[in-house]
Amino acid sequence: MDFRYDERTQELQRQLLAFMDEKIYPAEPFAAATDEWSRPAVMEELKAEARRRGLWNLFLPDPEHGAGLTNLQYAPLAEITGRSPHLAPEALNCAAPDTGNMELLAQFGSPEQQKRWLTPLLEGEIRSAFCMTEPEVASSDAANIATRIERDGDSYVVNGRKWWSSGAMDPACEILIVMGRTDPDAPKHLQQSMILVPRDTPGVEIRRGMHVFGYTDGAHGGHAEIVFDDVRVPAENLIAGEGEGFAIAQARLGPGRIHHCMRLIGMAERGLELMCRRAVSRTAFGKPLAEQGVVQEWIAESRVRIEQLRLLVLKTAWLMDTVGNKGAHTEIQAIKIATPSTVEWILDKAIQAHGGGGISQDFPLAQLWAAARTLRFADGPDEVHRRSLARRELRPYLSEQAN
Amino acid sequence: MDFRYDERTQELQRQLLAFMDEKIYPAEPFAAATDEWSRPAVMEELKAEARRRGLWNLFLPDPEHGAGLTNLQYAPLAEITGRSPHLAPEALNCAAPDTGNMELLAQFGSPEQQKRWLTPLLEGEIRSAFCMTEPEVASSDAANIATRIERDGDSYVVNGRKWWSSGAMDPACEILIVMGRTDPDAPKHLQQSMILVPRDTPGVEIRRGMHVFGYTDGAHGGHAEIVFDDVRVPAENLIAGEGEGFAIAQARLGPGRIHHCMRLIGMAERGLELMCRRAVSRTAFGKPLAEQGVVQEWIAESRVRIEQLRLLVLKTAWLMDTVGNKGAHTEIQAIKIATPSTVEWILDKAIQAHGGGGISQDFPLAQLWAAARTLRFADGPDEVHRRSLARRELRPYLSEQAN
Amino acid sequence: MDFRYDERTQELQRQLLAFMDEKIYPAEPFAAATDEWSRPAVMEELKAEARRRGLWNLFLPDPEHGAGLTNLQYAPLAEITGRSPHLAPEALNCAAPDTGNMELLAQFGSPEQQKRWLTPLLEGEIRSAFCMTEPEVASSDAANIATRIERDGDSYVVNGRKWWSSGAMDPACEILIVMGRTDPDAPKHLQQSMILVPRDTPGVEIRRGMHVFGYTDGAHGGHAEIVFDDVRVPAENLIAGEGEGFAIAQARLGPGRIHHCMRLIGMAERGLELMCRRAVSRTAFGKPLAEQGVVQEWIAESRVRIEQLRLLVLKTAWLMDTVGNKGAHTEIQAIKIATPSTVEWILDKAIQAHGGGGISQDFPLAQLWAAARTLRFADGPDEVHRRSLARRELRPYLSEQAN
Amino acid sequence: MDFRYDERTQELQRQLLAFMDEKIYPAEPFAAATDEWSRPAVMEELKAEARRRGLWNLFLPDPEHGAGLTNLQYAPLAEITGRSPHLAPEALNCAAPDTGNMELLAQFGSPEQQKRWLTPLLEGEIRSAFCMTEPEVASSDAANIATRIERDGDSYVVNGRKWWSSGAMDPACEILIVMGRTDPDAPKHLQQSMILVPRDTPGVEIRRGMHVFGYTDGAHGGHAEIVFDDVRVPAENLIAGEGEGFAIAQARLGPGRIHHCMRLIGMAERGLELMCRRAVSRTAFGKPLAEQGVVQEWIAESRVRIEQLRLLVLKTAWLMDTVGNKGAHTEIQAIKIATPSTVEWILDKAIQAHGGGGISQDFPLAQLWAAARTLRFADGPDEVHRRSLARRELRPYLSEQAN
Repeated sequence: MDFRYDERTQELQRQLLAFMDEKIYPAEPFAAATDEWSRPAVMEELKAEARRRGLWNLFLPDPEHGAGLTNLQYAPLAEITGRSPHLAPEALNCAAPDTGNMELLAQFGSPEQQKRWLTPLLEGEIRSAFCMTEPEVASSDAANIATRIERDGDSYVVNGRKWWSSGAMDPACEILIVMGRTDPDAPKHLQQSMILVPRDTPGVEIRRGMHVFGYTDGAHGGHAEIVFDDVRVPAENLIAGEGEGFAIAQARLGPGRIHHCMRLIGMAERGLELMCRRAVSRTAFGKPLAEQGVVQEWIAESRVRIEQLRLLVLKTAWLMDTVGNKGAHTEIQAIKIATPSTVEWILDKAIQAHGGGGISQDFPLAQLWAAARTLRFADGPDEVHRRSLARRELRPYLSEQAN
Repeated sequence: MDFRYDERTQELQRQLLAFMDEKIYPAEPFAAATDEWSRPAVMEELKAEARRRGLWNLFLPDPEHGAGLTNLQYAPLAEITGRSPHLAPEALNCAAPDTGNMELLAQFGSPEQQKRWLTPLLEGEIRSAFCMTEPEVASSDAANIATRIERDGDSYVVNGRKWWSSGAMDPACEILIVMGRTDPDAPKHLQQSMILVPRDTPGVEIRRGMHVFGYTDGAHGGHAEIVFDDVRVPAENLIAGEGEGFAIAQARLGPGRIHHCMRLIGMAERGLELMCRRAVSRTAFGKPLAEQGVVQEWIAESRVRIEQLRLLVLKTAWLMDTVGNKGAHTEIQAIKIATPSTVEWILDKAIQAHGGGGISQDFPLAQLWAAARTLRFADGPDEVHRRSLARRELRPYLSEQAN
Repeated sequence: MDFRYDERTQELQRQLLAFMDEKIYPAEPFAAATDEWSRPAVMEELKAEARRRGLWNLFLPDPEHGAGLTNLQYAPLAEITGRSPHLAPEALNCAAPDTGNMELLAQFGSPEQQKRWLTPLLEGEIRSAFCMTEPEVASSDAANIATRIERDGDSYVVNGRKWWSSGAMDPACEILIVMGRTDPDAPKHLQQSMILVPRDTPGVEIRRGMHVFGYTDGAHGGHAEIVFDDVRVPAENLIAGEGEGFAIAQARLGPGRIHHCMRLIGMAERGLELMCRRAVSRTAFGKPLAEQGVVQEWIAESRVRIEQLRLLVLKTAWLMDTVGNKGAHTEIQAIKIATPSTVEWILDKAIQAHGGGGISQDFPLAQLWAAARTLRFADGPDEVHRRSLARRELRPYLSEQAN
Repeated sequence: MDFRYDERTQELQRQLLAFMDEKIYPAEPFAAATDEWSRPAVMEELKAEARRRGLWNLFLPDPEHGAGLTNLQYAPLAEITGRSPHLAPEALNCAAPDTGNMELLAQFGSPEQQKRWLTPLLEGEIRSAFCMTEPEVASSDAANIATRIERDGDSYVVNGRKWWSSGAMDPACEILIVMGRTDPDAPKHLQQSMILVPRDTPGVEIRRGMHVFGYTDGAHGGHAEIVFDDVRVPAENLIAGEGEGFAIAQARLGPGRIHHCMRLIGMAERGLELMCRRAVSRTAFGKPLAEQGVVQEWIAESRVRIEQLRLLVLKTAWLMDTVGNKGAHTEIQAIKIATPSTVEWILDKAIQAHGGGGISQDFPLAQLWAAARTLRFADGPDEVHRRSLARRELRPYLSEQAN
């Protein structure tokens, strides 16, 4: 057992921290000033600079297309980008949902699909959206997805309604990956498929952006409600084969959760840093907040909880690298359960230490909080994951009893 | 001891519930569609209708100007308006900060001040703002207020910077009540005064609206940052006398907190109602949420906590009526400590039961949550009130020990 | 609505507080010194004195046998006895389980049963136990009770195993009220009956006292595991009629919960008082605990929570008096859910403020804590009550949906 | 970074788990039956067997006297012993406070001291106590210790009062290590010394055992209150030199906390195991607890929290091994803050799942809970550690601000 980051990771951490200090943090106020659905003006400069520094596509384990890092190597880098989650991930071409979509195309896409969509995504020229969640069903169980994808000659025709399609409000978003049912009569886990739908295909109606506690989440390309009304795409747009949608979705979720959780830890570190700065600079009742017991408890608890979360996420990354996503299933659920709610707690305390300013646009805290709160739902609410993890924990006892 | 509402209260509850059902709830979607800083188009109709029904100025205990209700009679009515806090309070001319400002003018204003400002406020023709909090100081201690109000001939000249001046973004807002220091050399509690500043006075610069999470809180007239730069008003605009600002602020806070807390309880009831509706209509893992233990715990805990909160607020109202605001000091603090955080918890659970929809514009929950969260700061953060209440609790033990 | 205690209650409060100060608190150290299963030596003196002062059988609403107080009048008196729960309730002849047993006999007992058992209980000459919970079944659902009571000629024969039969370890305990099945084929709620079993009847085996976090709870007569092996009693020992056990149990539970909850509030007040005394007398890191923010938060939260609990319990008592136990069903559940866990929290903080002493025999806190913790189970665990209360809350929404 | 236990650790884990299954768990009921202050009869057999299997003195990193394991290697073994904390640690000669005392003697004892006391302790022939905490002062700050150790000719004379001297009630306890002030005028951290006091020295009065909730904690040798009244011991009994008491205490605490925390994790695993067994075997409301959402949440949360705690403790052990106890200071505090309260929470839920049985002597849960609760005080209450950790976290911000 060894808790040291390896050399390459440490080197990349140094480079990335320098990039944050020199480029990202200074760009933050500019970023805030841009309008709703376009990426901040400074973004193209940041991307060019990140690329120049070799901080590009770090998320992709496939060395042909990406940096070839393991999950364990990438995790601490994703954490650092989480300190400025509205700028840094995209600047490094490591922003959701593009990362998951690129992994998916690298792993399951045909050469033609890769050439047409993966290449411009890897170049940071376009963005993409992942259309899975539906308003009418509990989408945490993928088997419930009701959108239809029907074969008709050389085409597939898509009909359905999606929401929380993150990224789809971004004008640069050109491609949607849509999950839907190709065969409602197949066994439950073979009914679903995934298909590539260019955003400008006739019949694709981007209805509106969903709000997140008043935010449009423009820097993330928003969260669209989309209606697919007889949307026809060539048959070769299907990813892998019919009935493979569920399996692809499962493959996509593991790394996605690791990335989310590591960025959340970066958000928590940012919140704790801001809380400490506030504590040493603000006085109430004749002494700095830093000397008040209640604020000290918040700071100590935040530190203790962050350390625990980070170790659990890193161990999960290590398990994914050594025994595979399936072997790490329980741990992946565990980090999904523990991280958003804990980080939400930390950010709440950081907000409280800032008084009214904390909930306003003058600090990033309220927006970070909303992001953490949202992740208590993303990929299924906490309750679903706890239920599932408990059933796994109980399994040996049930077997024992059955004998 | 008797826990029954009196006859008049019960009659008003019936009338107000009918008004909610017939007019307010149906207007909610329209209200959401209007633009940021103007009141919803339907508002004037709602106000006219409320007035016609005798549901007007219920908050004002002074029978000459208002309904002449006691705090105990008004509290359950304020609760009902809290079920639709962006429409109902204003429709009844019972919205903050106007209520506090009207009370203040009714109690401390000169006949001329009352004629010029109280009358149109009571008529619902204009709105007002209360300018107390400042960005540079911990304003929970009113003695810290740094804005200057200086006598110069027949005028006072105001210089300073305020924020969280609720209501001031509303185009209908015509008058600001500003707290500031007239005599920095006086004893601490005699330094402050309050003065009436028409919003269009030269030197008044409304800088921007503060955001609350991502909301502008337009329906409440927003929360302005305002700079006062050599703002000159006639000397007769001073309220009561020089040095009375602190005493007036104290008098204003007690009823304000009761109103806030009762509306919060209405918000919690609304949240619980939505949670129950969702629970009976949404199925996950093969059975309705209503039959799932975790959701049942949320519902039960919400009910149990609401009942406790309501009783504490009602007792506080009763104390204010029977022994005065000063005698009810501890209880006023207690409800300020208990209510926002508890209601925040209930709304969080209601959101969680709604999945992604819960944090979006499709339900009122996220916005209600943000309002509850904000009230953990308003009139001083929870921590300040807990500290103060504890010191009072400890006082007899300290005396005992001193002897 | 009126939050004042009535005159008689206030007068009894004054008398009881004087009795606590003059007799009960001074007796506490002596009480601790006595051996395990016998009542403290001083108890007979305390009982005589309480009786002399008219503080006797206050719990019994029936004016023929008891003080004739309403639930609302008795509740604040029960609270006061909770401040010294190992001495005061018994000193006033108001200790569980005797109170419930006396109510039961007063309401359902035959004249002969009353003469034989109720009279000596009312005189404080003997004690009693209530034998309901069984180790093998989830006894929170009374319908699960498996003990058999079978008619055989002029006798009933009892067979079964009970535990947590509170009071049965006390040498003064002479009578057991046993719940068991007389007719397993009857409809579910008509299967059970209650019967009087003298503790010295052949076949009654008191196996052992159950421990409560290391305590034997000797002052309460312990909690016995009892085996009934062909225990034969005369047929006239049956209470009311065959099949009425469930109804009697329901009638017994409401007042029992009110009493428990009010005593718990007294325990919380005692804990808060001790926490405050400690806070003003103990110094750490150069200043008294009373000036440390974390301890101030504990004190403030304790006070705020106690006030809410008390009001909810009082309102429940008022409802029982005005609309009956059945009409107060939801509120009775609500206080059972809220009170033990909240008081446990307060006592935990009081313990923490005392350092190591807090968990030891040097303060009553650890024992009070164990009592509060135990009440999270008594009459069914919190989870059962929350489930039931939620189902009631959901009922109107389910009906609405069904239409 | 690597999360695998090394080979030697894995081999010892296998051996120790076998020993638990074959010897320890079967001995548990016998152990419970023995009387208060003597070690269970079976203990000598268990010790002989552990020794035979090479599972002896595993805690001692010094290869001359012990197993020569690193902290990181020993930690997972300590965890396993925590599953039966009243038997296993002593069976392996790895029980507190002997472990800390042996380390202390191995590191700071003179050859004579080692021969006289360390050898029989390593052989498991005698037991020892550590006498630091005092009733009159906040002993979490060691500088407060008031007991006097005064030189008088060839002797030292000890006067003072200690409590919570763990182990001292055990008849096998022969030696006390006492901390006290040799020079009240020295700088704060040089006033204290440690000295060896045979338990049968005249003037040593073992007053009583402190209770922990209702437990005497007999299996751990209890927690004594001891008065030292002119207790005279030879000068050579002083450990190291005058004024070194504080430094020795610091050296002793780090490993002590690691051991406590690892055993606590074992206790949590035991609690979770019992909760799962109960969940699959107990039915309420028509289905097993294992299928009820609330119980599933407890199980999932327990697993998620245990995983995080264990990783934090293991990382702390690794830091102690690689950068020393001083370099691991923050992490040692972090585990002390996080572990007892989290394990207490898990055990509380396990108890709740067991109904009344959970708080009784029929399951180990209540006793495990009491042990976890106690550790929220041992070596200073949580609040002290949080305060200290926060100050460390704030230090860089304070420096930054100072510049």
